[in-house]
Amino acid sequence: MANNIESTVLSSRVRLARNLADYPFPSALKSTAQAKEIIRSVAAAASRLRPFRLYEMDVITENVAQAICDDHLISTELAANRKYGAALIDEEGDEEDGDLRGKYSIMINEEDHLREQYISRGLSLAVAYRKISDIDDELSRTLRFAFDAKLGYLTACPTNLGTGMRASAMLFLPGLTRMNKMNRLIREISRLGHTVRGVYGEGSAAEGYMYQISNEVTLGVSEEYILSEVQRAVLEIVNLEAQARKALLAEDRVGIKDECCRAFGILSNCEKVSNAEFLQLISDVKLGIALGFLEIEDFSSIDDLISAVRPANIDLLIDKPLTAAERDVHRAGECRAALAAVRRTSAGL
Amino acid sequence: MANNIESTVLSSRVRLARNLADYPFPSALKSTAQAKEIIRSVAAAASRLRPFRLYEMDVITENVAQAICDDHLISTELAANRKYGAALIDEEGDEEDGDLRGKYSIMINEEDHLREQYISRGLSLAVAYRKISDIDDELSRTLRFAFDAKLGYLTACPTNLGTGMRASAMLFLPGLTRMNKMNRLIREISRLGHTVRGVYGEGSAAEGYMYQISNEVTLGVSEEYILSEVQRAVLEIVNLEAQARKALLAEDRVGIKDECCRAFGILSNCEKVSNAEFLQLISDVKLGIALGFLEIEDFSSIDDLISAVRPANIDLLIDKPLTAAERDVHRAGECRAALAAVRRTSAGL
Repeated sequence: MANNIESTVLSSRVRLARNLADYPFPSALKSTAQAKEIIRSVAAAASRLRPFRLYEMDVITENVAQAICDDHLISTELAANRKYGAALIDEEGDEEDGDLRGKYSIMINEEDHLREQYISRGLSLAVAYRKISDIDDELSRTLRFAFDAKLGYLTACPTNLGTGMRASAMLFLPGLTRMNKMNRLIREISRLGHTVRGVYGEGSAAEGYMYQISNEVTLGVSEEYILSEVQRAVLEIVNLEAQARKALLAEDRVGIKDECCRAFGILSNCEKVSNAEFLQLISDVKLGIALGFLEIEDFSSIDDLISAVRPANIDLLIDKPLTAAERDVHRAGECRAALAAVRRTSAGL
Repeated sequence: MANNIESTVLSSRVRLARNLADYPFPSALKSTAQAKEIIRSVAAAASRLRPFRLYEMDVITENVAQAICDDHLISTELAANRKYGAALIDEEGDEEDGDLRGKYSIMINEEDHLREQYISRGLSLAVAYRKISDIDDELSRTLRFAFDAKLGYLTACPTNLGTGMRASAMLFLPGLTRMNKMNRLIREISRLGHTVRGVYGEGSAAEGYMYQISNEVTLGVSEEYILSEVQRAVLEIVNLEAQARKALLAEDRVGIKDECCRAFGILSNCEKVSNAEFLQLISDVKLGIALGFLEIEDFSSIDDLISAVRPANIDLLIDKPLTAAERDVHRAGECRAALAAVRRTSAGL
């Protein structure tokens, strides 16, 4: 089961929506000056807590905005809000929990004045909640949050009222996807008060087999209840995914292994690869690892690779504008280097 | 140049057409008894010279016939001639020339009573001629060949009259093929009195980039003249191929390297592969080796692989009938094992 969780739950995230009592909601801000005032006061409060770095949307390049968006540290909506938006990101992460290395980010003037979040690896909702809750407690000492004794935290959209909390997990569900079970699962999960949606990557139809589950209800329940309910749903999905993987193998073991190992063979030898093809192939490599056909010491290096070869990140790392063809060559080199640590196994599930 | 020859000329073959004076040509044989008489007398004469093994077409399985046909030891015509045909094959080869390891075969009752041939690796026409000529000299001591003082050796088809000799070389011409130079080359070579034709493999459109060049003229010239003319044409083609490879790389080095290395990545990791896909991919692997993107200690192991994974050979080696799907799985395993000796290089042409 431990291994099933590890190969199914990629990351956990808890985010809290907060608004400052003394300002209108972001959509009703009257001037850039007012937006900047909010950014300054949040940044001042946060910088006392951790070494946050401030990204103001009106000055950062599109590449930088795209890169932090690709890493799920800001939303596409914030990335597009070049006038009022900003983000505080602690890129150092937090090492104290060992493998649960995570990242803090606080979006400013997205739908709410503050969207505080912590993303950590694996199934670690309680850790993520404790981390961001600590930050939230500290911020509330210096910032006056809009809070109603009966309704709880006030938010721009009523779906976030109350706890203002969304707990989510990023899931890798190749078995359920390929056994055509996702539509049914999405319907069932929605009846439990949660949402499951496909995660779409940059420039490609779908970042293979990736889904996000999150709570729908924020009002009239405690934070602890939300966490335990999402956790319970995630564990149920992990079980269903494990069954689906077994069924998938029972159906055509050789075919699936062939597909996964070919994807590994191509990515570890190609001389150029587009982002769209890369996303498809790396999903099959991840599937191969999940099914035990391929093995790697440190699974997170695959996620690091996925992040490193996104178009925006390549440009940032190379630090000069590349043509699409040059990016494809660079991406292939990164793949070859990262996948040198992957081995075919003789076993498998 | 040495390296160009090695990566362009795969094998050399010399074959001599002979007929027995005391029998009508094979197409005019009157009975199976007469055909068997010829087989017996040729086999008796040959077995004194080398450890030839006799394959009589009316008793060997289709698989065995297909396998020796795939290895170019008998013609498709002989393989189809299940009534009168036979072949003497020395599968031990001849090790005395080191790398030039070759194979003797004598087809009986193909178009002529005897078609004696020697196939050796690389550009080695003189060796092949010496080998088969020695056999021919010895056979002529006990068999009475149909010979005319003016016309030379008499053959069923006038195109073989005189020397009865055909000298040929198997060429790997990916550069000329991909630069669309083959049609022109074939026309030019034909003006020199030689024939170039594509070599088609079992079950697939084309055994990638493979061509055979052979002399057209057999009458009114000496054996030595034929050998030197074919050798000259081969060396000219080797030069043209080297130029074409350079031009191909100048056009799209990254694209070609990508193609070759992906083919290597797939074949060295796949779990199943059809014969048709295999032939396509292994051609690209060979191209990658020829261009220096891939390297292997012993190039002939690639040819051994190509031979070993032909459908008929797989069935012979496994010694039980396999389904097509089982054959594809077995073929993939052979590929992984053989290609473990191949490495990507950092250099290349």
